[in-house]
Amino acid sequence: MSRPLVVDIHTHMYPPSYMAMLRARKEVPYIYDPENGPPRLIILSSDDNPAIPLHQRGRPIDTSYSDIDVKLSFMRQHGIDCSVLSLANPWLDFIHGKEAITWAQRINDDLESTCAVNNKDEDRDRNESRPLDEKQSLFAFGVLPTRADPNDIVIEIKRLGNLPHMRGAILGTTGLGNGLDDRAMDPVWHALEETEQLVFLHPHYGLPDEAFGGKSKIAQYGHVLPLALGFPLETTIAVTRMLLGGVFDRFPRLRVLLAHSGGTLPFLAGRIESCIIHERGFMDNGGPVRGPHRSIWNVLKTNIYLDSVVYGAAGLQAAIEAGGGVDRLMFGTDHPFFPPLSKDEEKWPSVMTNYKAISDSCGDDAPTAASILGGNAIRILKLRLAGRSPRCQE
Amino acid sequence: MSRPLVVDIHTHMYPPSYMAMLRARKEVPYIYDPENGPPRLIILSSDDNPAIPLHQRGRPIDTSYSDIDVKLSFMRQHGIDCSVLSLANPWLDFIHGKEAITWAQRINDDLESTCAVNNKDEDRDRNESRPLDEKQSLFAFGVLPTRADPNDIVIEIKRLGNLPHMRGAILGTTGLGNGLDDRAMDPVWHALEETEQLVFLHPHYGLPDEAFGGKSKIAQYGHVLPLALGFPLETTIAVTRMLLGGVFDRFPRLRVLLAHSGGTLPFLAGRIESCIIHERGFMDNGGPVRGPHRSIWNVLKTNIYLDSVVYGAAGLQAAIEAGGGVDRLMFGTDHPFFPPLSKDEEKWPSVMTNYKAISDSCGDDAPTAASILGGNAIRILKLRLAGRSPRCQE
Repeated sequence: MSRPLVVDIHTHMYPPSYMAMLRARKEVPYIYDPENGPPRLIILSSDDNPAIPLHQRGRPIDTSYSDIDVKLSFMRQHGIDCSVLSLANPWLDFIHGKEAITWAQRINDDLESTCAVNNKDEDRDRNESRPLDEKQSLFAFGVLPTRADPNDIVIEIKRLGNLPHMRGAILGTTGLGNGLDDRAMDPVWHALEETEQLVFLHPHYGLPDEAFGGKSKIAQYGHVLPLALGFPLETTIAVTRMLLGGVFDRFPRLRVLLAHSGGTLPFLAGRIESCIIHERGFMDNGGPVRGPHRSIWNVLKTNIYLDSVVYGAAGLQAAIEAGGGVDRLMFGTDHPFFPPLSKDEEKWPSVMTNYKAISDSCGDDAPTAASILGGNAIRILKLRLAGRSPRCQE
Repeated sequence: MSRPLVVDIHTHMYPPSYMAMLRARKEVPYIYDPENGPPRLIILSSDDNPAIPLHQRGRPIDTSYSDIDVKLSFMRQHGIDCSVLSLANPWLDFIHGKEAITWAQRINDDLESTCAVNNKDEDRDRNESRPLDEKQSLFAFGVLPTRADPNDIVIEIKRLGNLPHMRGAILGTTGLGNGLDDRAMDPVWHALEETEQLVFLHPHYGLPDEAFGGKSKIAQYGHVLPLALGFPLETTIAVTRMLLGGVFDRFPRLRVLLAHSGGTLPFLAGRIESCIIHERGFMDNGGPVRGPHRSIWNVLKTNIYLDSVVYGAAGLQAAIEAGGGVDRLMFGTDHPFFPPLSKDEEKWPSVMTNYKAISDSCGDDAPTAASILGGNAIRILKLRLAGRSPRCQE
């Protein structure tokens, strides 16, 4: 085998039906079609700023968001053998009740079918006269109707568990609306644990505008503050609240994949643990806090998985150290976000930066790099890549 | 030399005059003296929660906050040869105009005198019959009257530059009130750059309560969310705004020491740089953003210094990698915060955790550990430790 198998576990899509629904909306999240220029995807509340003209709000959007052939072409260009697709934020967090259930079923069936058709599409393989070992595989994380009745969420989780190409569910940090330490989440955690599905925890809401100095300050620097800092902190706060709320004590077999290498969790884990130990000391003196029973280091090595979308060796090394090695770290691209800046660039700089961080961190240790690039995902998600002998996947 | 010199560059005090001033106040920041039990230090807005009884708000406070002999005793217990003292938050951010100038002069003169008296106190050394090489040295970062006229701040910076034990100034993330990318800060940066003093950038304000799910959610987990997550993110946002605002382009020789190993900057640097590059691409297409000219990696290796107060090897390794090596990393304790949980503990677990992170990261490489523990601080801050031959300090 000349090169390791590469699996992208952080790669998003909006199915065409979801795109049409966004186009019909006039408030966040929505798509705006200007007369000239590409459509704009306006999903962040900080982007919905009346001071910014509509045709400059949000980000331009193209077919890479919804066309599976564009995804497959991106995969070929970047040497990606397998993608585990997920709906991009804000998922179904803004759709309530029965309507959310209908959307979840529709999107999950659509994703499942996309994977199934692709993985079995022998005709296309022949037509493109590609050798067998260049066949690309697709799997997916499903979406949950987070604003529906928790019983209905559980039903959809169990249904996902029986779809052959589904490997878990993507979930935002608000959970059912009140955060992931909300006790009302317990049936959801229970169902995910029981069906042995991974939760892909992903940010969307960022931080309150005031954290960055207000809306106009954010606008001054474009998307940098909300995307570079708000997103990772949102993830870190969410998983810390899970820990503090005892979720990992109550559901010790729950498996959570954290987007963007955990936000900042690997870096802050020591500080979080130190603060919890101190708080527990004060608690014994009459303070109000209940502490979690398990240490954050234990949770990091038992329940948490990280992607490698961290754009540098510094972050990646913290992720490796916090996870007790590379076994829980999996390659990702965040496609179709962070596209190239110019049409001339065939390879995406954002993706190449993440590839480089892995090679910088692993040096000459090819087996370690291979485990991050694909081996871990194949093992953890029990992937069977189409057109490969099982031997190549070990 | 049997062991390396240890310099603590992150260690706080409240002079007795400042304590008295806090005691006279009834709103944040203030000290409350219950009839039974130790006084409470209530400095975080999240602690000033009417739902929490006064005697449980904030944190208990003892003489370690104001008594230099307690500090020296702590240093002896933990093998610390030199401390670079700084006023603890919230400094003078809540005192305006001329009153702030008076306070800054008073506190800085007090700190200078404390250091001078200690470093020359031959009598005390003899009385305690300690060998010469156990003499402890003190230096300090001054405080600035941040809510005074910028011209007066500049005058105090220049005065600090001439005090023999001062090595720079501690600064909160709000700067003069509008953040560190405020152009009104430019004379301050200029004066600090010209006088070659270090800025010790330190958090206090954390994040808006809503970032954590509101006041009652914060109270549920004690101080964990604001201290473990709010503080480091505040620092990261502040320094990112400096970068985005072009501060390091306009003041290329400015030197900034970031508390808590940069908050989360080493971990997020790659993501920040990636987001800036993408934003600049969009800017060229008509977006509103001006980007900084220098890359974050260059600023990290030129202008930024980090303490080692990160409580774990994962964070420390990111700090080392982001700084291009250990040369810009300096040991710290955050004393007197994070004290032991029981009176039986002679050594502070928080301090020992930070010592252990250094030894875990450096392995058998004693010279590297020594540079983090003290060598870097001695070189960067031009410290001359009392009672040591110059040879020991190289």
